[in-house]
Amino acid sequence: MTITPDIRREIDRLRVEVAALHSELIRWNLVVWTAGNVSARVPGADLLVVKPSGVDYQDLTPASMIVTDLDGVVVEGDRAPSSDTAAAAYVFRELDWVGGVVHTHSTYATAFAARREPIPCVLTMMADEFGGPIPVGPFARIGDDSIGRGIVETLRSSRSHAVLMANHGPFTVGRTARAAVKTAAMCEEVAHAVTVARATGEPHPIDPADIDALYDRYQNAYGQQPLMQGHAR
Amino acid sequence: MTITPDIRREIDRLRVEVAALHSELIRWNLVVWTAGNVSARVPGADLLVVKPSGVDYQDLTPASMIVTDLDGVVVEGDRAPSSDTAAAAYVFRELDWVGGVVHTHSTYATAFAARREPIPCVLTMMADEFGGPIPVGPFARIGDDSIGRGIVETLRSSRSHAVLMANHGPFTVGRTARAAVKTAAMCEEVAHAVTVARATGEPHPIDPADIDALYDRYQNAYGQQPLMQGHAR
Amino acid sequence: MTITPDIRREIDRLRVEVAALHSELIRWNLVVWTAGNVSARVPGADLLVVKPSGVDYQDLTPASMIVTDLDGVVVEGDRAPSSDTAAAAYVFRELDWVGGVVHTHSTYATAFAARREPIPCVLTMMADEFGGPIPVGPFARIGDDSIGRGIVETLRSSRSHAVLMANHGPFTVGRTARAAVKTAAMCEEVAHAVTVARATGEPHPIDPADIDALYDRYQNAYGQQPLMQGHAR
Amino acid sequence: MTITPDIRREIDRLRVEVAALHSELIRWNLVVWTAGNVSARVPGADLLVVKPSGVDYQDLTPASMIVTDLDGVVVEGDRAPSSDTAAAAYVFRELDWVGGVVHTHSTYATAFAARREPIPCVLTMMADEFGGPIPVGPFARIGDDSIGRGIVETLRSSRSHAVLMANHGPFTVGRTARAAVKTAAMCEEVAHAVTVARATGEPHPIDPADIDALYDRYQNAYGQQPLMQGHAR
Repeated sequence: MTITPDIRREIDRLRVEVAALHSELIRWNLVVWTAGNVSARVPGADLLVVKPSGVDYQDLTPASMIVTDLDGVVVEGDRAPSSDTAAAAYVFRELDWVGGVVHTHSTYATAFAARREPIPCVLTMMADEFGGPIPVGPFARIGDDSIGRGIVETLRSSRSHAVLMANHGPFTVGRTARAAVKTAAMCEEVAHAVTVARATGEPHPIDPADIDALYDRYQNAYGQQPLMQGHAR
Repeated sequence: MTITPDIRREIDRLRVEVAALHSELIRWNLVVWTAGNVSARVPGADLLVVKPSGVDYQDLTPASMIVTDLDGVVVEGDRAPSSDTAAAAYVFRELDWVGGVVHTHSTYATAFAARREPIPCVLTMMADEFGGPIPVGPFARIGDDSIGRGIVETLRSSRSHAVLMANHGPFTVGRTARAAVKTAAMCEEVAHAVTVARATGEPHPIDPADIDALYDRYQNAYGQQPLMQGHAR
Repeated sequence: MTITPDIRREIDRLRVEVAALHSELIRWNLVVWTAGNVSARVPGADLLVVKPSGVDYQDLTPASMIVTDLDGVVVEGDRAPSSDTAAAAYVFRELDWVGGVVHTHSTYATAFAARREPIPCVLTMMADEFGGPIPVGPFARIGDDSIGRGIVETLRSSRSHAVLMANHGPFTVGRTARAAVKTAAMCEEVAHAVTVARATGEPHPIDPADIDALYDRYQNAYGQQPLMQGHAR
Repeated sequence: MTITPDIRREIDRLRVEVAALHSELIRWNLVVWTAGNVSARVPGADLLVVKPSGVDYQDLTPASMIVTDLDGVVVEGDRAPSSDTAAAAYVFRELDWVGGVVHTHSTYATAFAARREPIPCVLTMMADEFGGPIPVGPFARIGDDSIGRGIVETLRSSRSHAVLMANHGPFTVGRTARAAVKTAAMCEEVAHAVTVARATGEPHPIDPADIDALYDRYQNAYGQQPLMQGHAR
C-alpha cells in the first residue's frame, strides 16, 4: 500500500489522538493494568492505528502506536499490536461508518457480560445514548474472526453502539475513536447505576415511546459536535 | 436587556465561579464525560450563567460559559447552552431564593431515581442537610417546561434541596451555585451509604423529632457561612 | 491559661500536623465536602487543636486551625471550631491516654452505623487492629455531652479504638492524631470488605483464640513505631 | 554471605524496582495505609528485597528497602522487614521459579477470602490470567512457616498465581516482582467483577475446554514480554 502525504498526515494525527485517548480509559476507571485498548480507522485508507500489546498506558507515545491493514497485518511499528486488533479490523471491514473501536473489561459492564444479560434501558441517559438496552453478543474465543463477527451481528440488530461479549466484556464503536471511548465510559456508568438500582429493588421501566423520543432528540440536537454523537443507520 | 457595570461585574464573577465549580463535580465523582452541569442566577438581572453543551470539563474556561435570559435564550456565548438550561431557568423564574441549580447523573442517587424511590432519612447527616427524605419528582421528557415544573413542585413539598427526577437523576438547588454543588455531593454520599446499609439488612429509622432537632441546629448554627447553608422557607 | 514556650512549641507542631492529617482523610476516601475532622490533644496542657467548622479541606492551613480548652472554649482562632469539638473534648477529659480523635461519615462504616450493627471480626486485619468486632454506640443528638459520653462508654467495653455511633458514623481514637486517622482508614476498609463478603454469602468466623493471638502479636511486634499502634489498657 | 559485584548490582536494581512497585499497589487501589507489600528474590543469591514494616508508601525509597536472607534474617537495612517476610522467604525457598511475592488486603479478593470461597472462573480475563478459579489457602496465624506453607501447597495444586489465604487476603507470585504485582491487580479486578455479577444474579459458566484454550493462547502469545506472563509448570 502506498502511503500518500494525505494519509501520512492522517496517520500521524491518529497516532497522537489514539495514544491520548488511552488516558481517558484510565481517567474514567475503565481499565486495569493493560486490559483495554482503542483503535481508529485511518480515513481514506484500509489502515488502522492501535495500541501495542502488553504495554503500560503511561508508556504509550504517538511513536509507539502500531499501524496495521484491515486484516491486522502490521504496516508500521516494531511491536505486536493489541491482541484485539483482529476484532477491530473485522468491524472496520464490515461497518464503513465506524471510525473507532474500543475494548475494555470495565467492571460493571463485564458483570452483565458474565451473566450474559443485556443492560435494561431504565435510565433517560441510556435512552439518550443507546436508544434501548445494551445487547449481549455470543461467546467467542480470541484468535479468529468470531469476536469481530459477534460484535457486528449484534450491532446490526440494535441501536446501541456498545455490545457486551458473553463472559468477556464490552466492545464499543463510534464514528470516531473519541466517540467510541465516550460510549465505553457511558456503558460502564449505566451498568453501574443499573446494578446499584437492582441491588435493593427493581427499577421502574421507561415507556418505549419515551425511549424513542429521548433517543431522537439526543441524537439530533445534543452537543456541539453532532457528528460525534450521530448514528449512521 | 441593558447590562449595567454592576451586572457586568456579577456576570464576570460568576463565569469564573461556575467554570471552577464543574471541577468539584469531577472531584466528588458525580459525573462521567459531560453528564452534569452547574448554573447560577446573576443577582439583580433576569440572567443565568451555565455550562456550554457537550464540552469536556477540562476545556471549560470563564470565557466559554454561556449567559442566557430566564427563558433560556442565549445572551452571551458562541455555543449552545447545556440542554438542562430550560429546567434551570424555570427553577430560577419560580423560586426567587434559588441562586444555583446543579444536575448530575451521580450513580447511587440515580439508582434511587431508577426505582422512583425516595432516599429514606436514616442518617444524622441526612437530617442535617435535607431535613428528611430526598423526594422523587415525576418522569418528564426533556424539551419543554415539564422537568422544571417537576423540580419546583417537588421542592415545594419538602425541606430537601435535592430532587430525584424519575428514571433520570438528581437536581439540586441552593442560595448559591456552590451550595447547590455541595448538596449534589451530599445527596450522592447519602444515597451511597443508604444503599450499602440496605444491601445486607435494614437501616434503623431515626425518630422524626430527632430529625427536626438535627435539621434546626444544623441550618442555624453550623459552619462559618450560614447563608450558604440556609433555607428560605 | 498561661501558654509556656514548651506548650507554644507543641501547639505550633500540632497545627502543622493536624492540618496535614486532613489530607489523609481525602486520600483514603473517608470524607465528602467538609464532613469529617481531626483533633489532637496538646501534651502538657488542657488544650486541643481542631479543624475550623465548614471550611474546605484544601483551604486548611496551620494558621487556620482552632485551639480550644477541654471544655471546647476557643483559646486561639478567629472561626468556630468543628461542631464535633465538644465530643472530642469530652473524650480527652475522660481518657487520658488518648492523644487524637477523628470523626468521619465514611460510607461503609456509616452503613453499619445506620443498621446499628457491629462490624463482625472475620478478617485477620480486624483482629490485628481492633482485637474483635467494632462496636456500636448509642444514638445521640449533637449539642451536649451525649456523643462524647457514648463514645467513651463504648470504648471502655471494647478493645476497638473505633466506635460506630448509631445512625451517625465512626469516631476513632489513638495515642496520637495520626494513629486515630489510621484507625479511621482501617475501620472503613474492614467495613467495606465485610459488606462485600456478606453481599453474596456469609463470612467464615475466626476462632476467638486466633483473634486474641493475632491482636497480641500485632500490638506488641508490628511496625517501627510501637507507641503509635499501642493500646493502653 | 559474600556479596559479589554482580549481586551488588542486582540488589541495587531491585531496591529501585521494589520501591517503585509499591506505588502500583496504590495506583490500582489494592492497599490502605501500609497494608500490603512487595518482595523480590535477588537472582544468583539466597537473598530478597522487601518493604520495611509499618512505613508509609510515600516515604519508601530505594535506600529504605530491607535485604534479608531466605530465612528472613536482615542483611541490609536499619528497620524491621515487613511482617510478611517469613511467608515470602518460604515461597522463594520452595518455588525456585518465583521471583516476586506480593501481599495485599485488596477489598474484593479479601471478601472471597473471608468466605473461604474460591473465585469462580466465569470471565475470559480470568481464564487468560489464572487458567481457572483462584483457590483458597488454609487459615494460618502469622509468626511461623504456616502462611508460607499454605501458599506453596495451594499454588502447587492450581494454575493460578494467586492464593486467597482464609480470612486474610490474597498472596500472589510471579517470575518477577512486577508480574506478581500485575497478578495482584488482576486478582482484585476479577474478584470485583464476579462479586458484582453475583449481586443480582448468577454468572454463566465457561466451558472448561474454552478455559484451557484461552489460557494456553494467553500464556504463549500475549504481550511483548512473554517471560513476565509465563508459567513454569
